[in-house]
Amino acid sequence: MRIDILTIFPNMFSPFDESIIKRARDNNILDINIHDIREFSLEKHKNVDDYPFGGGAGMIMMVEPIVLAIEYVRKINSGKVIFLGPRGKTFNQNMAKEYSLQKELIFVCGHYEGVDERVFEFIDEEISLGDFILTGGEMAAIPIIDSISRLIPGVLSSSESLSEESFSGDLLEYPQYTRPRDFRGLSVPEVLLSGHHLNIKKWRQSESMRITEKYRPDLKNKN
Amino acid sequence: MRIDILTIFPNMFSPFDESIIKRARDNNILDINIHDIREFSLEKHKNVDDYPFGGGAGMIMMVEPIVLAIEYVRKINSGKVIFLGPRGKTFNQNMAKEYSLQKELIFVCGHYEGVDERVFEFIDEEISLGDFILTGGEMAAIPIIDSISRLIPGVLSSSESLSEESFSGDLLEYPQYTRPRDFRGLSVPEVLLSGHHLNIKKWRQSESMRITEKYRPDLKNKN
Repeated sequence: MRIDILTIFPNMFSPFDESIIKRARDNNILDINIHDIREFSLEKHKNVDDYPFGGGAGMIMMVEPIVLAIEYVRKINSGKVIFLGPRGKTFNQNMAKEYSLQKELIFVCGHYEGVDERVFEFIDEEISLGDFILTGGEMAAIPIIDSISRLIPGVLSSSESLSEESFSGDLLEYPQYTRPRDFRGLSVPEVLLSGHHLNIKKWRQSESMRITEKYRPDLKNKN
Repeated sequence: MRIDILTIFPNMFSPFDESIIKRARDNNILDINIHDIREFSLEKHKNVDDYPFGGGAGMIMMVEPIVLAIEYVRKINSGKVIFLGPRGKTFNQNMAKEYSLQKELIFVCGHYEGVDERVFEFIDEEISLGDFILTGGEMAAIPIIDSISRLIPGVLSSSESLSEESFSGDLLEYPQYTRPRDFRGLSVPEVLLSGHHLNIKKWRQSESMRITEKYRPDLKNKN
């Protein structure tokens, strides 16, 4: 998948230089390109925002640099143009799955004080991370792109994917334990040390049900 | 506010070295400290994960390095210990407001394949970013800490705060426009150029209602 990100803060994307996403980029499974909207400003001082018409506090991102940036990226990426903002549908795992099937995506990050409304003439879809206010779309783009990317075949290693498959989408995961067997008197449940695979499987299923019931009963009722 | 973050990927937090959060850190309004859990590993090769008891794919983060890291940070930060994970309450603006009143907070980032269950004996609260899977808690910590931080008095400038106050919490914001008046035939609504403050205010209120009704009718029905 090719992803292009338009932002006024290109240095914010260090999460994509680490861990699983870095590995996917190094292996050419995922191509993430970050573009500085400021470079598309036609202003003398490369300004990208200005005061709102009609008055009011705060600065509004100008339409021109954003649209020029979108048009530049469109020449190399024909995917959907996605804006991160509060009017969008709240992101969830089903949306992550759908977007992970795309070959190309373009993400546009706005500043929380607002962008010129005319920008939306050049946007295909808007996604919201959740019901809270962020300083900028970058803070939403980071987890959303992470969540989409890890579903692209080859991004997770085979053992990571297997771990994924053992986790039913409708239930929270069962408790996991690793060495040491005893940590300050807190011990690993006996069944996990028994070597009895069927009992382990049963215990994990029932724990998964119990934990979902306790913390997220709404997940069980979804299906 | 003092925030300590425990992570195995300390380089992921570049979003806090930019923009509004950087300014707040430079002005000593916000003190964000990032700690590498790996430094607390007692293993020869500083490993922080191992195979799960009872079998299964994937690696589980060990209890010891995380707990030693929490105990180290606890000496300098007496705030709540928050884990980013799927069992938690889904983050929202009210939670952001509540956390922004705290003097100190500690965030623990786990890897998505799982952490040893005994870690939760040392955790006060769990927060979920939303109903989607991430490669690690870092991807949730970034927007959540951003959202909390911007509510701390002094983090936003006075004009940024004013802009905030003009936005009613129950409605989406009205459309904003800035220079130029005409962009490829797309023009600014006449009322915003009229200089008639009452009409501008009325237009903005009705647009705010219209946009909320169109994109997020659930927000209006909340109150």
